[in-house]
Amino acid sequence: MLPNTKEFLHKKLLVGSSYIDLTGKLSVHSLFSFFQEVAWEHATLNGFGFEHLKEKGFFWALSRVYVEIEALPKWTEPITLSTWPSGTEGPFALRDFSLFNDAGEKIIGATSSWLIVDYETRRPRRPDAFKERMPICDTIRATKCNAQKISGTTHETIYSYQITSRISDIDVNGHINNTRYVEWAINSFPLEFYQEAAIKEITINFLSEGFCGDNLRVDSRKVDDRSYVSSIIRELDSKVLALVEIHI
Amino acid sequence: MLPNTKEFLHKKLLVGSSYIDLTGKLSVHSLFSFFQEVAWEHATLNGFGFEHLKEKGFFWALSRVYVEIEALPKWTEPITLSTWPSGTEGPFALRDFSLFNDAGEKIIGATSSWLIVDYETRRPRRPDAFKERMPICDTIRATKCNAQKISGTTHETIYSYQITSRISDIDVNGHINNTRYVEWAINSFPLEFYQEAAIKEITINFLSEGFCGDNLRVDSRKVDDRSYVSSIIRELDSKVLALVEIHI
Repeated sequence: MLPNTKEFLHKKLLVGSSYIDLTGKLSVHSLFSFFQEVAWEHATLNGFGFEHLKEKGFFWALSRVYVEIEALPKWTEPITLSTWPSGTEGPFALRDFSLFNDAGEKIIGATSSWLIVDYETRRPRRPDAFKERMPICDTIRATKCNAQKISGTTHETIYSYQITSRISDIDVNGHINNTRYVEWAINSFPLEFYQEAAIKEITINFLSEGFCGDNLRVDSRKVDDRSYVSSIIRELDSKVLALVEIHI
Repeated sequence: MLPNTKEFLHKKLLVGSSYIDLTGKLSVHSLFSFFQEVAWEHATLNGFGFEHLKEKGFFWALSRVYVEIEALPKWTEPITLSTWPSGTEGPFALRDFSLFNDAGEKIIGATSSWLIVDYETRRPRRPDAFKERMPICDTIRATKCNAQKISGTTHETIYSYQITSRISDIDVNGHINNTRYVEWAINSFPLEFYQEAAIKEITINFLSEGFCGDNLRVDSRKVDDRSYVSSIIRELDSKVLALVEIHI
């Protein structure tokens, strides 16, 4: 078990019917909603949350996430999600997540890399300025490495579709909610593929802000037998808003 | 306050960041997720939930919902959602919901009409067979009337778009999740309309099962200055899967 100190937030959750997919297990994009929830809560409790940064003219921008999945919890299963600030890496503030099943076994580990961005200039600020407020534990890590940059690939696109972002995709910052990119990437695959191939690892790079009404194209490429990379591209300016790498 | 007896389930909830819309308030489709959560939980606790019906070869199918909204709770606001079986109406089992803010004031009332459907024949069975298991309170109601049938309208379509249902839209029964229809209807409106016009009442009729890969058209018509009706139609067979009536 993880320590019960202020570096850590441990949250008991229930896998409710809104969070499950057609297989009856927690959907991967709901996992990202859970991460978002506990990240906000822990940061707010410790004085470096959304409102605290806003007062200073900054906001948290999620840049990368990396998740290792051993098993996904089932519908109605009681779980514990723990989170802690796990250090810094250049411009990034790191935050880790470990998800435990009812028996106390760790079934999911994740790490996320965040930028502190200036509202006016849109430029990132090094996290050191806020470091003294963050109760960091960098000796315990949830994953084998930090969230990495996804490298471009020239492999052939095997699945592709178009979607327009709409009201329910937009968060309180006026941007496309980060959980949507994961959802849209997974949605590019055929239903049968999703039912049979368990996702073991998933990495996301958030690259540009998306807005309501953006016409998007989701292109998924097969890199090797176990790896797929999906790009979410805005048609208007060909900007890649996010890259999602899935290992099965 | 509502009674604290087994007819009622009272659930304290927090409006987390995954449930809010761009205005910082609980999104209407998240409200439907909340309803779904507490409905399952209360039915399961009392022995007439998903698993109990499945054993007998039946499933719960949500047919209609009607919601009266005085105010939507804000991000991080603690709320209490109460639910109870509120009687029967012909083939329907009724379930009501009242949502209270932190001060204990009721801000949302809702009622839902459910069918008990035979897995094999796909035909509804009258709820009387399960009535003895349901702790019904029909003397307290959350809304001024039961969820009504939405009448067809020949008014001109003012907003229309197409969408294909995908993996994340599908629930454990293999159908499009009922919360999606609300989301898709609201998504047909322009962002500015949504930000300015507070939704006061919303009625939904679920008419046909939708599946993964269905190509859908969402048509919204203005009935009068305060009322809009959206139809979610499957292109292949022109079946109306759901009707959503919104009063602002």
